[in-house]
Amino acid sequence: MAETVKYLLDESDIPTHWYNLLPDLPSPPPPPLHPGTGQPVGPDDLAPLFPMALIQQEVTTESRVEIPEAVRDVYRLWRPTPLIRARRFEEALGTPARIYYKYEGVSPAGSHKPNTSVPQAYYNAAEGVDRLTTETGAGQWGTALAFACALFDVDCEVWQVRASYDQKPYRRAMMEVFGATVHPSPSDITEAGRKILADSPDSPGSLGIAISEAVEVAAGDPNTRYCLGSVLNHVLMHQTVIGEEALEQLALAGDTPDLIVGCMGGGSNFAGLSFPFIREKLAGNIDPTIRGVEPAACPTVTRGVYTYDFGDTAGMTPLLKMHTLGHDFVPDPIHAGGLRYHGMSPIISHLCETGVMEAVAKRQTECFEAGVLFARTEGIVPAPEPTHALAVTVDEARRCAETGEEKVILTAMCGHGLLDLSAYEKFLAGEVVDYEYPQARIDEALTRLPNPDL
Amino acid sequence: MAETVKYLLDESDIPTHWYNLLPDLPSPPPPPLHPGTGQPVGPDDLAPLFPMALIQQEVTTESRVEIPEAVRDVYRLWRPTPLIRARRFEEALGTPARIYYKYEGVSPAGSHKPNTSVPQAYYNAAEGVDRLTTETGAGQWGTALAFACALFDVDCEVWQVRASYDQKPYRRAMMEVFGATVHPSPSDITEAGRKILADSPDSPGSLGIAISEAVEVAAGDPNTRYCLGSVLNHVLMHQTVIGEEALEQLALAGDTPDLIVGCMGGGSNFAGLSFPFIREKLAGNIDPTIRGVEPAACPTVTRGVYTYDFGDTAGMTPLLKMHTLGHDFVPDPIHAGGLRYHGMSPIISHLCETGVMEAVAKRQTECFEAGVLFARTEGIVPAPEPTHALAVTVDEARRCAETGEEKVILTAMCGHGLLDLSAYEKFLAGEVVDYEYPQARIDEALTRLPNPDL
Repeated sequence: MAETVKYLLDESDIPTHWYNLLPDLPSPPPPPLHPGTGQPVGPDDLAPLFPMALIQQEVTTESRVEIPEAVRDVYRLWRPTPLIRARRFEEALGTPARIYYKYEGVSPAGSHKPNTSVPQAYYNAAEGVDRLTTETGAGQWGTALAFACALFDVDCEVWQVRASYDQKPYRRAMMEVFGATVHPSPSDITEAGRKILADSPDSPGSLGIAISEAVEVAAGDPNTRYCLGSVLNHVLMHQTVIGEEALEQLALAGDTPDLIVGCMGGGSNFAGLSFPFIREKLAGNIDPTIRGVEPAACPTVTRGVYTYDFGDTAGMTPLLKMHTLGHDFVPDPIHAGGLRYHGMSPIISHLCETGVMEAVAKRQTECFEAGVLFARTEGIVPAPEPTHALAVTVDEARRCAETGEEKVILTAMCGHGLLDLSAYEKFLAGEVVDYEYPQARIDEALTRLPNPDL
Repeated sequence: MAETVKYLLDESDIPTHWYNLLPDLPSPPPPPLHPGTGQPVGPDDLAPLFPMALIQQEVTTESRVEIPEAVRDVYRLWRPTPLIRARRFEEALGTPARIYYKYEGVSPAGSHKPNTSVPQAYYNAAEGVDRLTTETGAGQWGTALAFACALFDVDCEVWQVRASYDQKPYRRAMMEVFGATVHPSPSDITEAGRKILADSPDSPGSLGIAISEAVEVAAGDPNTRYCLGSVLNHVLMHQTVIGEEALEQLALAGDTPDLIVGCMGGGSNFAGLSFPFIREKLAGNIDPTIRGVEPAACPTVTRGVYTYDFGDTAGMTPLLKMHTLGHDFVPDPIHAGGLRYHGMSPIISHLCETGVMEAVAKRQTECFEAGVLFARTEGIVPAPEPTHALAVTVDEARRCAETGEEKVILTAMCGHGLLDLSAYEKFLAGEVVDYEYPQARIDEALTRLPNPDL
């Protein structure tokens, strides 16, 4: 049996700064626009939703943003996270490729999400906010925000996509253990929710709808603010602690990546691992392929259009220039709930458009297959989301087995699947089916773009 | 907010030897007896069930047993585990006590159990065994053995207590992800199971019954062996890596424990943390109180008798001198499934009888209360089992708050509760009730002791 090879850092190696990719890009991504005026949004437009510190981070031109000591202190509960060489997985694949995974499942919430929920709760608490609202799909983000709010003594209210609320009672229970209040979305608490329910009383919900509800409640209360778990610049920036650590750890391993692969929903996990490497790539220090993986059932980048669209279903957010399937997209019920978002982070969309990175789509049965092999060899049951990156890793490793190439593959293992075991149960019973989103539905949804001329 | 204080060790600090407490005891515990002859069992009696290496470890008189390199290598997937000062928990309790927890939930199975499942799978594989059978209550042990069997390429068959099989489908799914076959117990596959089902078709099962089934199948096939997750000397010894690391980590913290507290089902978690400290206590180097905590619903040590009894319900195992509630005990459905065993490790029973340690019992609602406070302050949702030790920790911390004593408390946080969230859900909904086992049922069960004169 192959041996365990783990690259660990000291607590003192937890990054002191987040990395902001924006100033290092050859051209900046188009700015968010106010849906009424069509003009770039300013800090005042965002103030009802976010604390000033985070608004500043959203638009900062600094490359490095200092991590507050109180945030680094909480990070120390689980950071630095391990980088592990997947030797037994490699062995099972019979590949000469060297596969490394950066494992974020060691956090109290079981995923990478606390990297940003902790600073978001911290900055809100520091500005006197009493209550935070948010949405959650798979439940990873809601759990992470509930955890952070417990530590900083802020109330937390979560709108959980109905399908996930019903299918994943354990996720809800975990948020409640941390003291959060959880509503199924669409709910009758908000105007946005009531409107959806009036049209479709059995709506399974979507991230877009849940965002509308959480935004509506925050906007209506001066002591409440809203948190988003992905998509926005500051959220992606908070995740770069992953990649900064991985850069150091790969250097310890004496390896340089040929391929960096991660799953993409809104893009935060993918950005967290890859942005520090993209900095090095843009500086000419390394030249890895950077590949994001999305589900075939929610093919935002691979089959959506690059245009201005709302971040939510009700049209309450600024317009974001991004790849989108249409803001009223309702996904098929694939098990990777964290990847079922109609849009994509504007930075990542821009990176795809400018050729810095590429995107591919995978069907879920192939992903679960890779996840089971990973569990049986590496001992960790991956969440359904990162199995998308594993499926691409398997493809590449098998290609290397044919060609003899000793590629170095770095994959983002952004969370464990211990609260997703019913999905594995269905997969093992042969009950997981593949979905490919029908082009007609994409085309139809895109006829409702807010302003196709932008 | 209090700061995070974590004591980490290097991979090179993973213990090289397990610690065997037996030779350091002033008097040895009474030996296991053959139920037919009443004579001490020898290696030949055990050979149908265990590989020779483990039989030797069960009776060894060596204080230190070397850990095979292949086992240490797998340990490196999650060891050394952190020792964490529960500063935020202390703060919430307003106590001058210093509370440390040794956290074993970072293992791939989420508990301390892989510390012994890995060597058990290793030794069996090394002796050419094809298949391992075992029982599981809460599912922690079955998951741990399934994980280890996946790594060493041995088939794994698990009898899961019916109540847990029905209530915890995620646990079953996790074992199946690792490739194991899981049966509800009582099952109609074994004679022991069929006998129980004939008498009570709706039997919720018990660990004692599940052990009978797993033992019966192993005994009937020359290429199959049986594994136990607790109780036996070699199992407890494998767990001492926990305490050996904690000794080093507390020394790093510059503290000496006044109280060591852990939950006890069969005793493996408790032994793992405490035995190295008991060695130091017996040598006169430290003098902590050593306190085991059991559920009020399964009060083996606090209300059972100390006598020879079977380890299983059907009476297939050797007779063990231990505290017992009677081998046909069927527990109330408390949520700490790992603590619902009728007996106790003979070494731990002996330590209690000789006054080296003490035992107390706790009701589950008080335990969940401590668990929720812990989750909201430390960020980790504990399994229901270690919340029993937390409840005692809370008592002691509050006592210190009154007296001003700065006691150093070390508690065994043997696993996370991410697969036990339905129990927390019920607790938060006010649906968890307390059970106290009726004395009449204990008295009645004890009339069926195999040989009360031993």
